[in-house]
Amino acid sequence: MARIVQKFGGTSVGDVERIKIVALKVKAEIDRGNEIAVVLSAMSGETNRLVGLVNEMGSLYDAREYDSVVATGEQVTIGLLALALQDLGVSARSWLGWQLPFHTDDVHAKARIQKIDVDELNKRMKTGEVPVVAGFQGIGPDNRITTLGRGGSDTSAVALAAALGADRCDIYTDVDGVYTSDPRIVTKARKLDRITYEEMLEMASLGAKVLQTRAVEMAMKYGQRIQVLSSFEDKPGTLVVDEEEIVEKELVSGIAYSRDEAKITLVRVSDKPGVAAAIFGPLSDASVNVDMIVQNESVGGKATDLTFTVTQADLERAVKTLEKHSDDIGYEKIHSDDNVVKISVVGVGMRSHAGVAQRMFVTLAEKGINIQVISTSEIKVSVLIDEEYTELALRALHTAYGLDAA
Amino acid sequence: MARIVQKFGGTSVGDVERIKIVALKVKAEIDRGNEIAVVLSAMSGETNRLVGLVNEMGSLYDAREYDSVVATGEQVTIGLLALALQDLGVSARSWLGWQLPFHTDDVHAKARIQKIDVDELNKRMKTGEVPVVAGFQGIGPDNRITTLGRGGSDTSAVALAAALGADRCDIYTDVDGVYTSDPRIVTKARKLDRITYEEMLEMASLGAKVLQTRAVEMAMKYGQRIQVLSSFEDKPGTLVVDEEEIVEKELVSGIAYSRDEAKITLVRVSDKPGVAAAIFGPLSDASVNVDMIVQNESVGGKATDLTFTVTQADLERAVKTLEKHSDDIGYEKIHSDDNVVKISVVGVGMRSHAGVAQRMFVTLAEKGINIQVISTSEIKVSVLIDEEYTELALRALHTAYGLDAA
Repeated sequence: MARIVQKFGGTSVGDVERIKIVALKVKAEIDRGNEIAVVLSAMSGETNRLVGLVNEMGSLYDAREYDSVVATGEQVTIGLLALALQDLGVSARSWLGWQLPFHTDDVHAKARIQKIDVDELNKRMKTGEVPVVAGFQGIGPDNRITTLGRGGSDTSAVALAAALGADRCDIYTDVDGVYTSDPRIVTKARKLDRITYEEMLEMASLGAKVLQTRAVEMAMKYGQRIQVLSSFEDKPGTLVVDEEEIVEKELVSGIAYSRDEAKITLVRVSDKPGVAAAIFGPLSDASVNVDMIVQNESVGGKATDLTFTVTQADLERAVKTLEKHSDDIGYEKIHSDDNVVKISVVGVGMRSHAGVAQRMFVTLAEKGINIQVISTSEIKVSVLIDEEYTELALRALHTAYGLDAA
Repeated sequence: MARIVQKFGGTSVGDVERIKIVALKVKAEIDRGNEIAVVLSAMSGETNRLVGLVNEMGSLYDAREYDSVVATGEQVTIGLLALALQDLGVSARSWLGWQLPFHTDDVHAKARIQKIDVDELNKRMKTGEVPVVAGFQGIGPDNRITTLGRGGSDTSAVALAAALGADRCDIYTDVDGVYTSDPRIVTKARKLDRITYEEMLEMASLGAKVLQTRAVEMAMKYGQRIQVLSSFEDKPGTLVVDEEEIVEKELVSGIAYSRDEAKITLVRVSDKPGVAAAIFGPLSDASVNVDMIVQNESVGGKATDLTFTVTQADLERAVKTLEKHSDDIGYEKIHSDDNVVKISVVGVGMRSHAGVAQRMFVTLAEKGINIQVISTSEIKVSVLIDEEYTELALRALHTAYGLDAA
């Protein structure tokens, strides 16, 4: 017998018929002898509808009221699934954030989970009752409903699994697992049986949309095994686990990409101490997230070119901020370009193998693709290239690292 | 300065624009120097939508889950109104049943209010904050959401007003007050400025749909003044108050009618002790509500005819029950007729004036209307007549009791 937390998202609970199918999936696990708790999102589209209503109410925006309105989406789905399970003869009970309670901090609309009280749940699960828990929501220290931010239900599920000491947290989505690359572009992409937390975290933050970054962080922190699998097919997905659980480590596990990138170059910045602070201080104050940064070698020790990337949404604000502070910084001109893509190779195998980055550079050079910016971390190498080479680069790298399906 | 609880129902909060109009109405009372608390229903149609979803989930019906799902309707409207008020510069905060808390018993879907904790509300109202409270819902002893049954928001509002020691509970509806009779039939019907709790209670249970019976009962119990008024017009409505507050008592305050009546006659019932118990015991066991009962004088002391009324929905069940028990009861045959209407004249003035019933009988006789059944109480006389005389009887009685508008 295993204890499993199953999480179903928007399309999986999109209507009454889908919720009944979810009930059958839950019952199937119970019939296999497992102990189940369920975490649900709202019906697909419902959270957007509720956010729309809130936005229509005026220019002021009280996150406490936003949270209370938006949290009704999950309140409906958990009640309906509890009823559907009861109709199949399964003992079930819905649980709202404040009922467990699911304690969070008081940062409304972006709350962080602090502590989940599962004593009552543990007691009831031992009698065979299935708790159906509202994802995305909790209760703050002010006794008001909080929400965790969009996609927070994954995080709810992982946190509940950790609190319940679950053997596995199954995240049901509309894809059947984590792939070596985007299968819509790389037709030879393979589904991974296993991936480490670190790799999943890099993949998530580099553009793969399978899991929320926060959910992976939490799973890593508590060593909570996750499985990503399809709610529309009945087959195993990808396990996200600790590195030690993976015996045969691949050099590279996946090739990720993100089109949401823009490049800014400051031409002939004066090369003096404190210039980096003069640039990135104001950007940070303007809430611009800076990702990759490269500084070319100084020509004659007087001036240098400095290039960095931001998200496309931040580009305009970043440029305006830099123009406003041009006197403090001291540069000749600004170039910006949003026709760029970030390609990343990810793999824990890099830690023990040299030459991973070199293979990337050689492969891209062979295809005539110019690398504009490079950044590396312990388990990934990212490069910025012209956006029109996206598909070519992904396929070439996928082959070069031996990831192609047989 | 007065302390007022304002309650707005389904059509008044039917969409975003209507909720903004409600916010303006609340602000208008505040600008007059009054202290306001608001109670809301769900958007019109929303409760039906949610009940529909619950019904689709299967044949089993867990009232705990029903309550949790259905209570989301009010959770949305109170959050939106709090935002709309804030947008007008009014300090406001929404309150769910479990947040106050609004304690009820554990009869899910038909819970009764037990105690409302208003300490926090009192404290905040003194600072000028407007509480926007969810009607229809509370929290049971099992820490789960309860609902009060359809139309329960009126009861919530009156209970909250009583707990807050409010000077008045304003119930905004789609009519502008309580009328001497149905204005759609009796064109000379007048809006009453005041009506007593007892009269309102009789009117409500006799077919006038302005206020929930339970809400009036609660107001009477606590001496809570109610005003029924229109949310679409800006003028005073009808005050529901204690009898002592009405100086010039009318003999009759209103003429009510109910078409939801059916008549059953048992012909030649044996006239022996215990026969009434033999008839009404089985009907009670079958959950049939019996209203008016008349027993004709026994002919020769051997057998009698017995007539009584039930609601139209109960008619078939009542007849079947009586047929099943025909041996125990002993009667010759059953007649039933649902082409009947109950007409009632209501007024506290009857207590001190003789001849009120007589005037009713004379008036109906003059129009050639046959009275089938009569029942009286301290402040009302009801008669059952052929349904086709409904309009004629209402207008004639309205004139006979001097109620016609000048």
